[in-house]
Amino acid sequence: MGSLLVGQSGGPTAVINSTIQGVLKEGLKHNSITHLYGAIHGIDGIINENFIEITKNTNLEHWDKTPGAILGSVRLRLKHYPEDAHIYQKILEVFKKYDITHFFYCGGNDSMDTCNKISKFFETINYKCTVIGLPKTIDNDLVEIDHCPGYGSAAKIVATMISEIWHDTNVYKKGRVTIVEIMGRDAGWLTAATHLANSTSSGPDLIYLPEVAFDINKFLNDVKHLYEKKRKVLIAVSEGIIDKDGKYILNYQSSLEGDAFGHLQLGGVASVLANTVNQQLHLPVRAIELNLPQRCASHLASLTDVTEAKKCGIFGVKQALKGKTDVMVSMERIDDYKIKYTTKPLGVIANQVKCFPIEWIIDGNKISEHYTNYALPLIKGESYPKYNNGLPIFAKIDK
Amino acid sequence: MGSLLVGQSGGPTAVINSTIQGVLKEGLKHNSITHLYGAIHGIDGIINENFIEITKNTNLEHWDKTPGAILGSVRLRLKHYPEDAHIYQKILEVFKKYDITHFFYCGGNDSMDTCNKISKFFETINYKCTVIGLPKTIDNDLVEIDHCPGYGSAAKIVATMISEIWHDTNVYKKGRVTIVEIMGRDAGWLTAATHLANSTSSGPDLIYLPEVAFDINKFLNDVKHLYEKKRKVLIAVSEGIIDKDGKYILNYQSSLEGDAFGHLQLGGVASVLANTVNQQLHLPVRAIELNLPQRCASHLASLTDVTEAKKCGIFGVKQALKGKTDVMVSMERIDDYKIKYTTKPLGVIANQVKCFPIEWIIDGNKISEHYTNYALPLIKGESYPKYNNGLPIFAKIDK
Repeated sequence: MGSLLVGQSGGPTAVINSTIQGVLKEGLKHNSITHLYGAIHGIDGIINENFIEITKNTNLEHWDKTPGAILGSVRLRLKHYPEDAHIYQKILEVFKKYDITHFFYCGGNDSMDTCNKISKFFETINYKCTVIGLPKTIDNDLVEIDHCPGYGSAAKIVATMISEIWHDTNVYKKGRVTIVEIMGRDAGWLTAATHLANSTSSGPDLIYLPEVAFDINKFLNDVKHLYEKKRKVLIAVSEGIIDKDGKYILNYQSSLEGDAFGHLQLGGVASVLANTVNQQLHLPVRAIELNLPQRCASHLASLTDVTEAKKCGIFGVKQALKGKTDVMVSMERIDDYKIKYTTKPLGVIANQVKCFPIEWIIDGNKISEHYTNYALPLIKGESYPKYNNGLPIFAKIDK
Repeated sequence: MGSLLVGQSGGPTAVINSTIQGVLKEGLKHNSITHLYGAIHGIDGIINENFIEITKNTNLEHWDKTPGAILGSVRLRLKHYPEDAHIYQKILEVFKKYDITHFFYCGGNDSMDTCNKISKFFETINYKCTVIGLPKTIDNDLVEIDHCPGYGSAAKIVATMISEIWHDTNVYKKGRVTIVEIMGRDAGWLTAATHLANSTSSGPDLIYLPEVAFDINKFLNDVKHLYEKKRKVLIAVSEGIIDKDGKYILNYQSSLEGDAFGHLQLGGVASVLANTVNQQLHLPVRAIELNLPQRCASHLASLTDVTEAKKCGIFGVKQALKGKTDVMVSMERIDDYKIKYTTKPLGVIANQVKCFPIEWIIDGNKISEHYTNYALPLIKGESYPKYNNGLPIFAKIDK
């Protein structure tokens, strides 16, 4: 007997609320779970006892179709116990007060680190509470998992929007270079998803990921030749591309600031490249940054992704009730696309980055069909929200 | 007896292919129409005899779900007859060669001007050919029509994306100002559509249209106070906002170039304002430009818009067969939202701009419910494309 607490950390995805919904719906089924709480803004909500209680009367409808993070999120990385001892003690105090025996934390590799640290702390002081990490990231860069919940939906909207942009940019006879910037700080998975639009014969001509050192001169040369041949050139570029010296291409023009994790806040590399194309090649050029819609376009989520995200939450609760702890819920792919849900130790996942396989990149600027075969099942099916008066209905809670 | 020719001019919308599909499907029904041609890239295709022939065997499926302009478009404004005499003569020659007796041109106010000039030329030389303009523009700025095909779909995706962005930007406890830039050079209709997201309680706090002179100091003051009160401030701003001296706010920072119509190529005003907020108020701020997806997001078009766009095409053919010429197909709203299709003289539409009503703007930065009542019927219903392997199926022709 004891209570369940769930929270979220890191950037939102289109399906994070689906995972949380899975946890809560499954949690409500078990009498051994006496209360269910959602921590508002993750660890911050725990420290400040900012919880909402979920009961059988709570309306969980629409959660799986709602963007953002209904419970709120936070970018707060726990230091090792000795340095942040007061935070760990506060967490313990709150957990004891609310009799939390099952803790779920949904996030990416930074959040899995936090999860792992709390788990180790509980183990050290012998506090009985299962700690389960739930995977999410549009970046698809968690290790020990076939793909991450959130990625399929981001890949689907990115591939769809690239195909639509291709159609739009092919309207005029006049030539133009169009450079589209895609999210992805360290790994090029989401930028690679632009290649999927080629299955409708309407994808980018050139694709640049952070995994390959970017050479501005080769880039200009490739653009020049393609423009002479086709007149319309569509380019997808990851926000995090770097040159052979490790310098961000974005940095060729502007200054950068770090966030709480010391990560660089990127964005704007398409503009940097567009300016260069315009100045060096004197070609008409447009820069497009797909921006937040990449991770919040719940109006066209992948049904596969939404379903898997929910199942991760459900599976996590079942594993916790079996006593599993210090693990992240993972997914293994079985041949013709079936998913086996499993668990992996948090310690091997925390802070690791799974980069896009170099062998799936052709000539430094194209993506191989190995990736297409990997990714197409992930974007399968359309998860549409319900609409009222022409606008999507999204879930709401009083925080 | 004679042939039908249809073409397009100006920027694409999500439903322009729906209008063209309407023209072609209706045209194919009538034996008095001997051949049907689509002009590739509008007037340019006429001058260069770049046509595709449409027959009963042509696959017109998916046209109404495909973004861009299947026939291609052009930005070419005809001068008055004496100045461009050789072009008019070439058009006449081609029309005679292909025995074109019904001409349809789909576009905005510039295109209606071209349409009107061709019509007057034919009248002067007594060449028998009906000339019908078909309305389209995401800007919604044509006069003599309740609303323009293309606007409803653009308004729907803009309002949906704003609501999703609102959810995304409300994830963290940390405050942030988010400035979203919306298309609309002269009229604020599309920017006003961001207000519709408020019907899901998730719209912008401040909305700026080109119809109201923008005051940067008042703006900064409003942002400062709202940030102090709410910490999350969401702002929608039209690309074409100007100050009391008629200077583009975009121009506060960068240089502008004109297009073939002498229009300014706008974009980037959100960045200009974000930089100002950051520098003057020292607040965390993000600029988002919704960019091309505003006009090409066929994956979430308004069903009302798609249907009306098609009906405009069908109605146009029927009117042409009755001998109507030198008119644009128009739509009148009947009380509880029904549409009466009608025609209006091209001469009164060409080059006019219907601005957003000043009386629907509150305090210079909010939109009244009069607009909501006007706009909600236009975004009603969802027109989804079919999907294959997780990606939308779009129509294709061999040009």
